[in-house]
Amino acid sequence: MLDFQIKNPTLILDEAICRRNLKKMAVKAKSLNLKLAPHFKTHQSLKVAEWCKDYEIDEISVSSFRMAFYFRDRGFKNIHIAFPFNPLLIEDLSLMQGQPVSIQLVNEEVARLVSQKVERSIGFFIEIDAGYGRTGVPVENFEVIDNILRVIAENKNMNFKGFYIHAGHTYHANLEGIKKIHKENQEAFRVLKAKYQSQYPELVCRSGDTPSASLMENFDHIDELGPGNFVFYDLTQAAIGSCNKEDIAVALASPVVDVKVGKNEILIHGGGVHLSKDVLNDNEVKNFGEVVLFEKDKWIIPAERAFLKSISQEHGLIHAPDALMERIKIGDVIGILPIHSCMTADCMRSYRTLDNDLIDHLEGTMK
Amino acid sequence: MLDFQIKNPTLILDEAICRRNLKKMAVKAKSLNLKLAPHFKTHQSLKVAEWCKDYEIDEISVSSFRMAFYFRDRGFKNIHIAFPFNPLLIEDLSLMQGQPVSIQLVNEEVARLVSQKVERSIGFFIEIDAGYGRTGVPVENFEVIDNILRVIAENKNMNFKGFYIHAGHTYHANLEGIKKIHKENQEAFRVLKAKYQSQYPELVCRSGDTPSASLMENFDHIDELGPGNFVFYDLTQAAIGSCNKEDIAVALASPVVDVKVGKNEILIHGGGVHLSKDVLNDNEVKNFGEVVLFEKDKWIIPAERAFLKSISQEHGLIHAPDALMERIKIGDVIGILPIHSCMTADCMRSYRTLDNDLIDHLEGTMK
Repeated sequence: MLDFQIKNPTLILDEAICRRNLKKMAVKAKSLNLKLAPHFKTHQSLKVAEWCKDYEIDEISVSSFRMAFYFRDRGFKNIHIAFPFNPLLIEDLSLMQGQPVSIQLVNEEVARLVSQKVERSIGFFIEIDAGYGRTGVPVENFEVIDNILRVIAENKNMNFKGFYIHAGHTYHANLEGIKKIHKENQEAFRVLKAKYQSQYPELVCRSGDTPSASLMENFDHIDELGPGNFVFYDLTQAAIGSCNKEDIAVALASPVVDVKVGKNEILIHGGGVHLSKDVLNDNEVKNFGEVVLFEKDKWIIPAERAFLKSISQEHGLIHAPDALMERIKIGDVIGILPIHSCMTADCMRSYRTLDNDLIDHLEGTMK
Repeated sequence: MLDFQIKNPTLILDEAICRRNLKKMAVKAKSLNLKLAPHFKTHQSLKVAEWCKDYEIDEISVSSFRMAFYFRDRGFKNIHIAFPFNPLLIEDLSLMQGQPVSIQLVNEEVARLVSQKVERSIGFFIEIDAGYGRTGVPVENFEVIDNILRVIAENKNMNFKGFYIHAGHTYHANLEGIKKIHKENQEAFRVLKAKYQSQYPELVCRSGDTPSASLMENFDHIDELGPGNFVFYDLTQAAIGSCNKEDIAVALASPVVDVKVGKNEILIHGGGVHLSKDVLNDNEVKNFGEVVLFEKDKWIIPAERAFLKSISQEHGLIHAPDALMERIKIGDVIGILPIHSCMTADCMRSYRTLDNDLIDHLEGTMK
């Protein structure tokens, strides 16, 4: 059991694991001459942001203006808002002008609006869809890219930084699939550079997903990495091989409220409002999280796997092997490694370190 | 478009629909001589709680002590905490003693702890598992029920109120399945009353799920209803027939950030952190929410269905028929009916009415 008392579901953050993940990615980026501008939507924490500074990170990515303001007001000036710019927020953008902030554009309409309104310098990336299918200009659609660049060129305050790809389909792939997607992204960047670099010699290409940043070694045609999840990792990343389970930096501490002897089931207070409803399917068996056991100042992954087979709003039902059934009693606190750590952190809105220090999360600081 | 400006994802609550749902359930309960003690975990709102008072509701259910304190401190005294009592919260329980509060017990160990500690009157239900498999004493296990009642009888402050069943498996059933489950619950209650009513003549049987409360007409052996979801309903309830889509009282207002002409896709700011990751599978096609269109003071369900085919943390991608593609432009605000309204409300942590009044949610009021 941990050294301090936990009475309600509490997200525990292992600083040592988190720092190890940060350092590993920073060292890798440096060795490959890539700029690392990590996405802070995963942790949304000023404290974790401070740790990032130890690894020479000075540009960050966020997913909303609210998040941008949170970090800007505490000393992070160089911010990319990595979400297709919402034209309803044009007034918020005016509060960011004149700073080393960049936004993301995916269509001509919004580019025109921004171009008409912006009065001081601001950067922008054009987001490219190279196969994920969620957002961005389809890579073959030079007409839209040209139109965005033409409209934006009318306003000298708009600085074109380059192209951004978030290959979210790597999160559902295996190693071979990730390699294939990564090559497609590299090819997309190669083509874009070939076409636009003469006109925009400073343009950079940034790749956003954690799996390729974690697993690939060749980053030709890529200049910058913007992954988020790697700072905590989670069971989704472990399942596709981006990390080991030992690299997961957060676990939900959950009170045990019933032990169902003879059924190999343990009931915890810990459900969808804590973990989110993200799920892995292991051969048609649903997995909403996996058990770890707390010791004084760390957690241990048990030799025999135990996992959350179902969750509802507040309840979690663990499928537990005999060894765990014998060890756990009602009133214990059990740890759950999350399926998707970004979502779990957003649900929980604060963390405790293994030393019981409170770690902030943006969502826990605002009414 | 609504009469007031929305710039970011905002949960809109239609008071008229919500009140209609409340009234319908209250009238039904009264006509069947059932007590209605609705579960407030769905809305977690003092304002909605005030509306409940108009329908003669005086006992409520909640899922945590925090929720119990929230409503108790604003005038709701009669509260059932419908979650297996977490023994780590024994001190919180002491703050509730002497009030018409009840807890839920599912095992002898916790019953003994409570019995040893409680010094002023408190009620308890024994939760029964009649087939759902999540929590509760298996209905055939009289030994555990007897043990709980024996242990508790040692403390005169402990008042046995009766048996509680939450048949959560009705949420995944069709009408025939719900009928079958409901009959099993009734049979469970019949057996329990036959065995325990002579010793505890005041005991009541309470059923917690929304589908059976919404759809069934015969409530023999049941005295009380404790549903939660019916106050808002959602697409899960519409899919199983508990309600019509016109009965869903909340919709996520979501800014449109891209319209992908030729792909029948609309990209919104509205994702898992807003809606939750709950999903319906319509013939293997995933559905994370369905589109409604806002007018001045209401929303309209379009004749041709449009739905969220994928969501990530902040993004939502709508599959849109041609009619919608022609109507919607970037910068519009589109509504999304949620798959699971309890989870969406918990993610969003506040509401706006169609008149732009702010409606509280417990999670939005606490740091």
